[in-house]
Amino acid sequence: MKWLRFEHEGRVRLGLLDGETVLVHDGDLFGGPQATGERLPAASIRWLTPCVPRTMVALWNNFAAAAAKNGWTRPAEPLWFLKAAGCHAAHGQAIPSPRAEVGRIAYEGELALVIGRTTRAVSVADAPSHLFGYTCANDVTAIELLNRDPSFAQWSRAKSFDGFGAFGPVIETDLDWAAGSVRTLVGGRERQNYPLSDMFFSPAEIVSAVSQDLTLEAGDVILCGTSLGVLPMKPGTTVEVVIDGIGTLSNAFG
Amino acid sequence: MKWLRFEHEGRVRLGLLDGETVLVHDGDLFGGPQATGERLPAASIRWLTPCVPRTMVALWNNFAAAAAKNGWTRPAEPLWFLKAAGCHAAHGQAIPSPRAEVGRIAYEGELALVIGRTTRAVSVADAPSHLFGYTCANDVTAIELLNRDPSFAQWSRAKSFDGFGAFGPVIETDLDWAAGSVRTLVGGRERQNYPLSDMFFSPAEIVSAVSQDLTLEAGDVILCGTSLGVLPMKPGTTVEVVIDGIGTLSNAFG
Repeated sequence: MKWLRFEHEGRVRLGLLDGETVLVHDGDLFGGPQATGERLPAASIRWLTPCVPRTMVALWNNFAAAAAKNGWTRPAEPLWFLKAAGCHAAHGQAIPSPRAEVGRIAYEGELALVIGRTTRAVSVADAPSHLFGYTCANDVTAIELLNRDPSFAQWSRAKSFDGFGAFGPVIETDLDWAAGSVRTLVGGRERQNYPLSDMFFSPAEIVSAVSQDLTLEAGDVILCGTSLGVLPMKPGTTVEVVIDGIGTLSNAFG
Repeated sequence: MKWLRFEHEGRVRLGLLDGETVLVHDGDLFGGPQATGERLPAASIRWLTPCVPRTMVALWNNFAAAAAKNGWTRPAEPLWFLKAAGCHAAHGQAIPSPRAEVGRIAYEGELALVIGRTTRAVSVADAPSHLFGYTCANDVTAIELLNRDPSFAQWSRAKSFDGFGAFGPVIETDLDWAAGSVRTLVGGRERQNYPLSDMFFSPAEIVSAVSQDLTLEAGDVILCGTSLGVLPMKPGTTVEVVIDGIGTLSNAFG
């Protein structure tokens, strides 16, 4: 099932995407939303982020091919940072270009995990039952800012500018992620295309590891990291993150 | 004025602290709360965090004395990381001790800033009008985790365990911070006592700098960094962060 959130006639609604049609729902996405019987054409809605994460975790160095190319070793445990709550952007929403002094801005197409209920110190075996579903993400990064200060890597800052945490368009509850791939198109041209089976840590391993330290809540989002093909974006380009089985997250930059 | 939030008879309320008495208020802390006329003894309430930050920013290397002792240079700009939304702890709330594998846990007594309204790219001159007030914070840190992976400093993780973002007890709207000091008492013994005038970046400079990148909202909190005297805590100890003019934030650890 593909869940989404949208604004229609001034109200925030939930929906199930059925082809080109949205089956409108009301209630709590994580508490059994109810169909209202209304149907809307998907082309007519204003998309919102499919959930509102209180916490957005994002991994670094989670793909073998990227590690091999960059000379990174396989980490002993998932390595992650936090993205600020204000950086979320929905499908179709523009990602503002920061002031010139910040330097070049790169896209990072990623698979993202959406937590379905309170998750605290769960085992790898129990983690899947805490996972609501999967979505596409663009972990936008101010790459020059990251190591501008030699004494302190500015991960959270470089990745938390307004709009730098784009995710959506929908949350797919059933995805065979291990058979899937992430493609990133920049101005229509494919720049990333990598298999999700190349992850060092699987979704269940990631959720279990993070939950040993933090209590995760329904709607929290974990970005699984990116692989090869990251490049700066020119203002005026549109970036699409495509995961077959989920859909296409599209955002104009600048 | 000293604003606080508390739970009483199953309801979340606002209050103004007047000596040992709480003057109960209803409404939005940042939108002109109204006095109800009720008065309660401060000793009878269950304290909550004085606000609910969507974003908690925390600075590293913001005090000259700590930089001198540790051999850090004065940074060209405020260096910061994010603490997870789930790590907040109120005055009087216990900070759970993580599992042994995480290693030693240190207190860090700090001044914290509370944002009063939407703050985006404000100048240093305009920043004070966006600041609602000041509170005490304990930026609890899993010090061994921070650099356990040599390739990636785990700032957000080491500082985001449940309870690691303690702040309160009140938000003081009027504070001559430059004349103040932060004292940290561990088991009643003074371990930190440092002047706030030793900050590299003042509250207005910090708010201005962070707001160039992130949009801050009412209730967001920025921890100003700590100075000398940080040490690990033994489970079973109580840590108090004392800032004259604000009050004492007290939390048992473990």
